[in-house]
Parts: sequence; C-alpha cells; structure tokens
Amino acid sequence: MTRYRDLGLSVGQLPPGPRNAITDVAGVTVGMTTLVDGDGPLRVGEGPIRTGVTVIVPHSRIRDEPVFAGCHRLNGNGELTGLEWVRESGQLTTPVAITNTHSVGVVRDALVAADVRHRDDATAFWSLPVVGETYDGALNDINGMHVRAEHVFAALDAAGPEVPEGNVGGGTGMICHDFKGGTGTSSRVANGWTVGALVQANYGRRERLTVAGVPVGEEIPTTEVSSAWDDAEALGTGSIIVILATDAPLLPHQCERLAQRATLGIARAGGAGEHSSGDLFLAFATGNAGKLRTYKAHRDPAPFDVTMLPDNEMSDLFWAAIEAVEESILNALVAAETLTGRDGITARALPHDRLVEIMTRYGRGPATAA
Amino acid sequence: MTRYRDLGLSVGQLPPGPRNAITDVAGVTVGMTTLVDGDGPLRVGEGPIRTGVTVIVPHSRIRDEPVFAGCHRLNGNGELTGLEWVRESGQLTTPVAITNTHSVGVVRDALVAADVRHRDDATAFWSLPVVGETYDGALNDINGMHVRAEHVFAALDAAGPEVPEGNVGGGTGMICHDFKGGTGTSSRVANGWTVGALVQANYGRRERLTVAGVPVGEEIPTTEVSSAWDDAEALGTGSIIVILATDAPLLPHQCERLAQRATLGIARAGGAGEHSSGDLFLAFATGNAGKLRTYKAHRDPAPFDVTMLPDNEMSDLFWAAIEAVEESILNALVAAETLTGRDGITARALPHDRLVEIMTRYGRGPATAA
Amino acid sequence: MTRYRDLGLSVGQLPPGPRNAITDVAGVTVGMTTLVDGDGPLRVGEGPIRTGVTVIVPHSRIRDEPVFAGCHRLNGNGELTGLEWVRESGQLTTPVAITNTHSVGVVRDALVAADVRHRDDATAFWSLPVVGETYDGALNDINGMHVRAEHVFAALDAAGPEVPEGNVGGGTGMICHDFKGGTGTSSRVANGWTVGALVQANYGRRERLTVAGVPVGEEIPTTEVSSAWDDAEALGTGSIIVILATDAPLLPHQCERLAQRATLGIARAGGAGEHSSGDLFLAFATGNAGKLRTYKAHRDPAPFDVTMLPDNEMSDLFWAAIEAVEESILNALVAAETLTGRDGITARALPHDRLVEIMTRYGRGPATAA
Amino acid sequence: MTRYRDLGLSVGQLPPGPRNAITDVAGVTVGMTTLVDGDGPLRVGEGPIRTGVTVIVPHSRIRDEPVFAGCHRLNGNGELTGLEWVRESGQLTTPVAITNTHSVGVVRDALVAADVRHRDDATAFWSLPVVGETYDGALNDINGMHVRAEHVFAALDAAGPEVPEGNVGGGTGMICHDFKGGTGTSSRVANGWTVGALVQANYGRRERLTVAGVPVGEEIPTTEVSSAWDDAEALGTGSIIVILATDAPLLPHQCERLAQRATLGIARAGGAGEHSSGDLFLAFATGNAGKLRTYKAHRDPAPFDVTMLPDNEMSDLFWAAIEAVEESILNALVAAETLTGRDGITARALPHDRLVEIMTRYGRGPATAA
Repeated sequence: MTRYRDLGLSVGQLPPGPRNAITDVAGVTVGMTTLVDGDGPLRVGEGPIRTGVTVIVPHSRIRDEPVFAGCHRLNGNGELTGLEWVRESGQLTTPVAITNTHSVGVVRDALVAADVRHRDDATAFWSLPVVGETYDGALNDINGMHVRAEHVFAALDAAGPEVPEGNVGGGTGMICHDFKGGTGTSSRVANGWTVGALVQANYGRRERLTVAGVPVGEEIPTTEVSSAWDDAEALGTGSIIVILATDAPLLPHQCERLAQRATLGIARAGGAGEHSSGDLFLAFATGNAGKLRTYKAHRDPAPFDVTMLPDNEMSDLFWAAIEAVEESILNALVAAETLTGRDGITARALPHDRLVEIMTRYGRGPATAA
Repeated sequence: MTRYRDLGLSVGQLPPGPRNAITDVAGVTVGMTTLVDGDGPLRVGEGPIRTGVTVIVPHSRIRDEPVFAGCHRLNGNGELTGLEWVRESGQLTTPVAITNTHSVGVVRDALVAADVRHRDDATAFWSLPVVGETYDGALNDINGMHVRAEHVFAALDAAGPEVPEGNVGGGTGMICHDFKGGTGTSSRVANGWTVGALVQANYGRRERLTVAGVPVGEEIPTTEVSSAWDDAEALGTGSIIVILATDAPLLPHQCERLAQRATLGIARAGGAGEHSSGDLFLAFATGNAGKLRTYKAHRDPAPFDVTMLPDNEMSDLFWAAIEAVEESILNALVAAETLTGRDGITARALPHDRLVEIMTRYGRGPATAA
Repeated sequence: MTRYRDLGLSVGQLPPGPRNAITDVAGVTVGMTTLVDGDGPLRVGEGPIRTGVTVIVPHSRIRDEPVFAGCHRLNGNGELTGLEWVRESGQLTTPVAITNTHSVGVVRDALVAADVRHRDDATAFWSLPVVGETYDGALNDINGMHVRAEHVFAALDAAGPEVPEGNVGGGTGMICHDFKGGTGTSSRVANGWTVGALVQANYGRRERLTVAGVPVGEEIPTTEVSSAWDDAEALGTGSIIVILATDAPLLPHQCERLAQRATLGIARAGGAGEHSSGDLFLAFATGNAGKLRTYKAHRDPAPFDVTMLPDNEMSDLFWAAIEAVEESILNALVAAETLTGRDGITARALPHDRLVEIMTRYGRGPATAA
Repeated sequence: MTRYRDLGLSVGQLPPGPRNAITDVAGVTVGMTTLVDGDGPLRVGEGPIRTGVTVIVPHSRIRDEPVFAGCHRLNGNGELTGLEWVRESGQLTTPVAITNTHSVGVVRDALVAADVRHRDDATAFWSLPVVGETYDGALNDINGMHVRAEHVFAALDAAGPEVPEGNVGGGTGMICHDFKGGTGTSSRVANGWTVGALVQANYGRRERLTVAGVPVGEEIPTTEVSSAWDDAEALGTGSIIVILATDAPLLPHQCERLAQRATLGIARAGGAGEHSSGDLFLAFATGNAGKLRTYKAHRDPAPFDVTMLPDNEMSDLFWAAIEAVEESILNALVAAETLTGRDGITARALPHDRLVEIMTRYGRGPATAA
C-alpha cells in the first residue's frame, strides 16, 4: 500500500501523528471486512461483489462509556443513522460503521446485536448505532445486498491500530474525482492534541481535483485516464463520509464545530458537496472518556465533572481537522488501485508518476516543503 | 375497535375529516403487519413477540414522484432514518415505516429492496428510506429481532385507507402514559385543507396524562390501574413518532414548520419530550405531488412550477396539526387493549368508563362541546 | 399587582421557588424601564407611548464570566440577536434585553456600550448581546422609536430580585390571547434544582386560551370582553419571548434542550406558534458560572473542569421548565391591567372574577389541588 | 481600483458575469458609505474613524416583494440579525446591510426606519432587517460608534450596479490574512444562471492565504510585509460575511444549500472558520421575485405558483458560488490599499508585484489558464 507521503509529497502545515492515521488518537481502533468476488455482467444477488464494511471504535469500552460527539451535514444525499441521538445527547454510544448505501440497515442491526451481546442483561436497554454509507453501485452489485451481519462482527473483531487504505472495507468500490477512490486516513498534532480523520471517499469531478493546491485533475483529463462513469450511466458524483477523532477534551458543541471543518478539507481537495453527494461528518472526542456512562448504567443523580478545552484552543484543532481530512482524501486516492467491477466497468487509479511529475511542475514536488 | 369520539367525547375546535384519519389526505394509505406470538418468560430469539411494522405511503407513485417534506426533533433518543436527505432535498422519496427500535435496519433495507424491485432498471439508483421506531422491549422480545423483510412487504401490500389503531403494526407493544399505548390517527380540516396525523405513542408518565385539558392521569393513579413499568425495571418513558400529512401545497420549509407543531399536540396530552424519549416528527405535503421527479428520472434542466400556500394560511394548518396529533394520541390510548407480554408484564388499557366519568366531572363529558 | 396564585388558583405539579420568579435562580436579577406617555391619535414620533425595556442579568459578573446557554425557535417571525454566538459558543456573554420590535437595535447597541464601559480596556474586545422583541404597535407608537440607550442603562441599574409583572418593561404594550398581556415570571423546584422563566407574552387567539387545562378563552368570548384587534386592523397574533434560567450545571447542549421545552409550556396555555409570531427562547444555566471566562480574558490554553448534570436528570428539569413557562404566561395575563393606547385602542384585562368562576365550574377552582 | 484579474491572474473554471460582481444578478444593487477621519491615538468617541456601511438591495421592490433566501453559519462569533425570520419564512424582506460589530444596532434600526418611511401606512407592520458585521477595532474607533442612521440612508440612496472594492463601506477597516482586507465581489455564470457574491473579508492567518491554490501567504511572511496585529494586541483573526445572490429560481431550502457553499470558497482561500470568527452567510434568489408579497400585503388565501430549479442543476450553482466567493476574497485583497488607523496601527496591502511573481513561479502566472 502506497500512501501520499510515500511519494515524497507533502500537504499542510501541521505534523501528522506517528501513524498518520485516525488511530493516532489513543484508544481508537479500526476494522474492515472487504468483499471482492466475481467478474463480468451484473447479476443482482450474485455479483460481481466490490463492497465491504469499515468500523471505527472510539475506545474499547465505548458501549458502556460514551464519548462526546457532534456532527455536520455538508450535503445530505446520503445516510448516517443515529445522528438525532448524537445531536440530542452530544454523545456517541456505539462503534461507527460505514458501508454501501443499500446495506446500511443490516449493518445497523448488526451493531445493535453486537451491543446486545455485550451485556449480561440487555432488557430495558436500547441501541442507536451510527452507520454511514456511500454508493458503490457503479462497480458493485449493490442491490444484491451482499453485506451480512457476520461481516460486521468480523470487522469489529479485527479492529486494531493499523488502518488499511484504498480498496478496502466500506471503501472497496469507491470512485473519487473520477479516479479509483476508497478508504483513507490521516492525522495531525496541534498543541499536544491529536486530530485524526478517516474518510470513505466517493465524491468529486475529475477536473476539480486539487492536490496541495495544484490542479491535478485538470492536468490528467479523462482523455488521459478514462473515467469509470463513461461506462456507468452516471448520475453524477457520489459522497464522502468523514469520521474525525480527537483526544482533546471537547464538549459536544465543540465536537459539532470540529465536524463542520471536514467541509473545508474537502473543499481544498476540490469537492463541492454536489447535489448527488451524501457528505455527512461525525466528530468525537475521547478526552472525557470514562466520565460518561450509558443511560442504563448511569443512575446516580449527582452532577459530575467533565473537562473542557478553552475555546481559544479550538482554532488550531480546526486547522488540524482540515489538514487531516485533506490528506485522508489524498491517501485514499494514492492507495487505491485500479479496479474492474460489474459489467466490466473500471475505475482507474490516480497514476503516481504523473502525480509526482505534475506536483513538481507546479513547485510542489518531492523536494519542496509543504 | 373503539375510538375516542366513540365514547361521546370531543377534543379541539376544528372538524375532523370523514375518516378522522391520516388517510383523509387523498392518496395516503397505511398498512400494518402485527406480530403477536407466545407467552411467558423472555427467551431471546423465541419470544414472546409483541411487535410489528407500520407503513405510511404518501401516494401510490411515491417512488417516482416525491412529495415535499420536512421534519422536527423534539427529543432525539430515537431514530428516524433518512432525515438528512429530507432536510437537504426537502423531499420524501419513499414510503415511511415505523417499527421497534432494534428492527429499524431490517425494515430500512426492506424498503430499499421494495424500491429496487419497483424499477425496471435499478442501476445508478439509490434509496434512502425513512424508518422510525419506538421501544417495545417492556413487552416484546425486542432483541430477538422478529421483524423480517417479508413483514414489511406484507404491510406495503396491505396499505389502504383503513387505519387500525391500538395494539397494531409498529404500535403493538407500546406503553403510553403508563397505559397501553399503540398506533393512533386523526385528521382535521381547515380552510379546505386536510391535515392528518399518525402516531406510534409510547411515551409519557401516568400523572401527566391530560385529555382535552382534564387531568385524567392524576385521577387514575397507578394504585388504581397498575403500571407496566412496575414490573419492567423501567428506564423511564419511551417515545412518540408522529407522521403528519396534508394535501395543502406546502414548500419544504413550510412542511418543516408543520412538523414542529407535533410538539404542541403532544404537550397538550401531557408529554414532555423526556430524556429517554425519541420524539421525531415528519410532515409531508401532497399538494405538489406529480410535479417532482426522482433524481434518476429528472434529467430536464428547465425550471418548473410548484404551488405554494401563502404563509398567512399556515397558522390554521398549524392548529389543525396540533389537534390532529392530540387526538391521535387519545385514539391510540382508547383503542389499545390490555396486553400481557414477556415475563408476564402487563400494560393495562385506559378504562373507558372511568375516562368518561372523569371527563364529565370536569365539565368535558359526552354532553358538552369541545 | 395580582398574580395567578393570588386568586387561589394553581397550575402544575411541581412547587415554585420562594419568589415564584426567574430570580429564584440565585444571582439572576431583572430590571425594567416602562414608558407610558400620551393619549389619543397616533402621531409617529410623538406617541402615545406604551413600551419599555426589560433586562435579565444572569449574574453580576456576566460580562467577565459567561454562562452556558442554548436557544430554540418555535416560530421565527421575530428577532433575538446574538443567537449565532450562543449556538456557536454555547455561552451567554451579556445581559439579555427584551423590547419592542423596532427598538431592538438601539437596545442592542446600548448593551454593547454598557459592556464597553464595564472594561478598563475595551480595545480588542467585542460584544454580541442578546436582544429580543415583541410587537407593541397596536397600542404603542412603535415607529416613533421612543426607547433610548438611557432606558436600557436605567433598567440595568434597576436590576434586582423583584420582578414586576403585567404592563411593565418590554411587556408594557403586549396583547395575549386577545386580553392585555405583558411580562410574567414563575419558577419551579425539581430535585433541588430551580428553573425560572420570564416571558414577554404577546401571542395567541382568544378562543384558544387554556388555563390549567380549562378552556377559559372559549368561555370568555370577545363578545363578552372585546378584543383590541377589532380596532387595530390586526395582522394576526403576535409573539412570545421566553427566557429560562436554571442553577443546574447544564452543558450547552443541555441548555438547548431545556430551551425547546418552552414550546410545551406555551402549548399548554393555548399557543400555536402562529405564522405571525416570533417565538424565540433562550435558556441559560448558572451552574458553571465562574468557571468560564470571556474571550478576551481567557488566554490559558489548559483544559479546565466544568460540571454536568447527568442526562437522566434532565427530564425533571424539562417538566419544571414547561410548568414555569405556563405559569409565567398566566401571571402576565393576571397581572396585566386594561390599557388604552394609540388611537384609543384598548386591550382589556382578563377579568379575575370570571377566571375564578370558570375554573371552579371546570373543577379547577381555588379549593382544588392542581 | 485594481482587481485580481487586472493583474492578469485567473482563478476558477467558470466564466464571470460582465461586471464580475454581485450586481451581475439583474436587479441587485449595492451602496456604500465610507467613513475615514482623523489620525493618531485612539480617543473613544473622537476617532480615528475607519469604518462604514454597505447595503445590498436584492431588487428595487424588495420591501413589498420578498425574495426566497437561506443562510448558513460556518462560525458564529459574529452577528447577522434577522436570520430567524429568514429561516422560518425562507424569505428576505429587506435590504441587507454590513457594518462594524458595534454598530449593528443603529444600522438595523435605520433599515427599520427606511422600511417604515417606504409605506403609506406603517401601522400593523413590522420589519426584521438583516444586518451583519465584522470587527474593525484594530484600525477604527469602534467603541465610538460613529455609524449613524444617515449613513445607512446615504448608502441606500447610493445603491447602484457599480461595486467599489477594498477599503470601502463596511469593509473600510478590515484585515484579511494579515493583509489589508475589505469589500470584494465577483460572479460566475453557469448554465445560464448567474451567481454573485459580495464579501466583507476580515479573517484569516497570513501563512494560510492561498491564491488559486498557490501558498502566497507562506511566500510573503510577516517578516516581509508586517502584520497589523503585531501592534494591536490581537485576539486572533476576525470574520467574513458573505452575501450570495442568484437569478436562478431557487426555493428557500435550495438557497440554504447555496449559502453553505460560501464555506468552500473561503476554504480554498485559506480560511478555517476560526474560533474568533463570525462567518455568516446569506443567499437569496431573485428568480421568484414578484411572486411573493409581504405579510401585510398578502391577504389572498389562494395558493400561487413559484418556480423551482431542478435539484440536478444545483451542483453547478454550488460550484459557481464557491468560485465567486473565492474570487471575491481575492478582489478584496487586491483592491485594498495600505491603511493606517488608530494608534498608528497599519494594515498593509498585499503587494501586487509579489503576488504576480509568486503565482508565476508556481505555474499560475498571467500567461497561464486557470
């Protein structure tokens, strides 16, 4: 797997964390199940299959000890379940999952089931999981609904600090700026706090792709690297789901503010939040983990202390989020490999050599600072 | 089935439509599948089963011809999928379903499947259905997840103008103001427009139940009619989902305004939007049905005309919605019958004779005007 | 000044605080300037004047030590400045003022000026005050803009624990349910926490007024007590501004939840959030006062502790807010006295004897419990 | 006045309208009053004065014929009055004004007064104007409150199709990316529709300024062109107000979607929506002008037709808005001239020669296409 920085390129002004991944936020783990099977013409229910599921676990005790969270909608042609509960409570009470558009339900109920299994007594308990999606029907037999509960359980079991990128998990069948897209991650450190991002990048027009400010999409037209959409009766561009994590002790409204900054990272990469796009963002903060208890557990009426980051410190976290999202998208694009799906439709990878060549020509090549 | 007005009682100032149901809005149909099976101790996966699914179909061509819609959250300890799309597009593009909390996913994917089946060509198409829930785990084996896709298809097939109330559909296992709750519906006519409501009523404390302003809940304490929660290790009160329909030609922002008025109807019945409650409301308007096309179908870039109700007319529609919601709750309570569920837990019906007696004593009996 | 409970009547289930006023929340003070001058035909700029300004001061150091706050819009045909800052920061950083619709600006700038004067160094400082309004143009020469900065300063200087009600402050020229309306306040104690409300009540139709569930508005039609609107070429009904205060240690998102409950109190009194109504609500919580610092003062980047009320405790606070708002409206109506304004237009007081008689007839008279 | 394109530079992919200004949207006019007086040390109430007011008039009959509108908050450390009414009604019913933070009130009431004067009969009428602000206290005697009602009337009288840029109107005392900022405008044409933007740009850090993707801010550090903040005890960066106009027939929710795209234009220029920033956006659409009537005028209860742009067409409008906002910021920066304000604090202009030189070095110079 090649990442953006492996090409010698840079983006942004803040340093990434050690893994340059959402899992740089201590306690956060990520797991994926990737489903790739079959070739040739679409036969609904049979394949070809190019999909999967990604889970992000805020910390190992998330089902008992919620974290503060907030969300933002850039464009709502998509789904992220559980947001009414996030907005109301300011809390994330389950792992988060991302899959394809038509498998949100099965993944949601599987997270409920995992939540139930976790408890000795699941009576008088309910679960409202957060499950997002992007559309992979250009490559995948999306109406075959090949994601099953066992794939969610496997992703949960596999969750760890390593985050594969590109054609993996829920990002398997993605197309981004008319190149092969997918899963990407990155992180930034600011004032001792870490902000990590994970994206499922499925959005954007070719001519608008901007890499560290360089008009790469204009430089590599679809006449050079063909578009998957030419074959797919495209409806337009798809979506991007962004999950942001931080170890800073943010209150819910501060998480909501952070979530909106995903928009700015997407904008820097050339996104527009197009009509056909489901651009939904969740930000959670682990800095108060352990202080909150689930509804079922928390019967003590006494007020308790939580920690708050001074508002003045938010600005640097905002910038960290913007850069982490921007680089997550670039990582998804660089890591993704050319993939042929249903009906022979092919989404082609962003060519690394061309990318480096263009970046160099615009004064942003491997030898330059960000 | 007994309805509130069958007792000779009245509520509100506006006249109901001919059915006093959401289906008084022309074209709206409702279907339900009710699942009641088994008795005795809870065995997860086996039962007892006291649940179901309700579908509301805005009109027969909803999958091709969306209607304008809006939503409101009184309290978000619940789920109503698809709201980001409703908020972004101002449109409802699928039937709506309501079920129990842990079956939202399977019902959501079943609506997707129904949407796919409807089309000759479902490639380059996606579906973002609206599915809500309330918690029936006090009576039902909710973690057994007994609702299946076939139950959704059956409810869709059964959809018609008759709306059963009480222990039916998604409302089968409901508890409302510590009486047996369930599904309820009502309508109002104002200035020639019809506003209909359907509720899945599962919320509220006994002592707060107010019927047409009369403190019925105080008059019938749990020492007289026992509470199901005494046996159920209650977490507190549950939720209410409200679906509002109108034939008025409302624009999306007007639908959103209408949706918020569900709060006021609930308030009049004694609700509070408690912390444990998922009080989510959707309002749709059929007055522009036929003018809108789904994303896949609508390729013509030319602007088109839609009809708008003058803002001054909204106030009467607001009042119609408030009254329709209030009476829908009363209908759910009056129609629901005593039900024993898992572990012998029993939710007792609001006693009709006592209701009439109390109303009479407070000057709101059968002989009086509303 | 007569208050609702002075008539021997009761409403709600929770006990009020010692003053039954928003100032039962320790530290909260209220000040008013009432402007009544002239009689006869309207001469814009001359009068008659029937207006004023009300200020609510969360605590004496509010300009240096903000409090957490949140807001809600039931209907937005009105103004409450400063809400974008409340929503973003979750904080209230100034006193709150309420006046007439066309004097919001002068009052807003006066609060800025008061904020500037408070500081030794007001460079690199800005102020974003919260100022609300309701329309008093039926009685008042609203376009004469008679409220001046000095009236705001006087109200600030006069702020104390006593809260006059009825035709005072910003509530001087109000009309509510077609009776004379005005300023009202109330409070409730729940689980040791106090929730107080102050309303500027200018909304509602006669026939919808409900007092503790009793249809008082239907019982006193405008044929018995005439409507001011008959003379005033009414546009419909006006607005209600609600300010909620609590000493509970709520986080911003919890304040926002509390703010929405004002809707339910209004609903119980017969409000609908009509199109012509500006129903905007602010809730603040003093439980973390002293921990927060204004932007200018807070340069320390270290996280700090704030206190949070467990979510399970919110439900009782919600109910306290609902009851406090409901009784605040009743206090405004009972305290307000018949007032004649411009062009001889007269808004008539709710007749106390008739109110008691009707309440008694509906089983809610002085001898009965709430 | 020099504009960005006057330097031979380009940005974006869509063509601007004939004026490359918000007034390319037919009927939109802009007027400004610029207040510059005095030099030397700050004497509050005396000066130095570096401020003003800008008005944007959607069309000449705006007070009788509202336009659909929507808004968005990127960061709320600021004020834009009237937004609750915009959100509720989906309409803009007055001209829009922008001034300094502490003069919002006087400008707001002046717009009310202008609205009143416009009418033969202003009884039973109220006005809820939209007035925004950014902070100019680094250069201006902001606490002297030098903006008066007559300045607003003058700006209204002066409104026309020409839009001055830089140190003019409300933008007189602005600082943007640590260069002299101010007022800027631009437009784009997409599919026959025009989208125009006007910004009052007062935000951003030097090192983050990005011009058409080129890191101009990094290339011109404050060691080369000094920062005004070095002298001003900076609190951090300021704000940006964006007004978007289009002739497309957008419904209110579509306007709201358009408004959010201002965020993406700001992001492309290097903004972050920092904590101290009031980044509030309004979008209005003239495509239905003439169909709507003000509340006072509109007594006919009959539904009427309005025109809606198909949703599929929104994506190109989004991109037009993004580009127009980005270029408006660049125009503000290029047009603004070095200005010394109170206490000798100087905000220095972005040096045109250096800008061209840097753009050329990064492959985006005058000879290149965008």
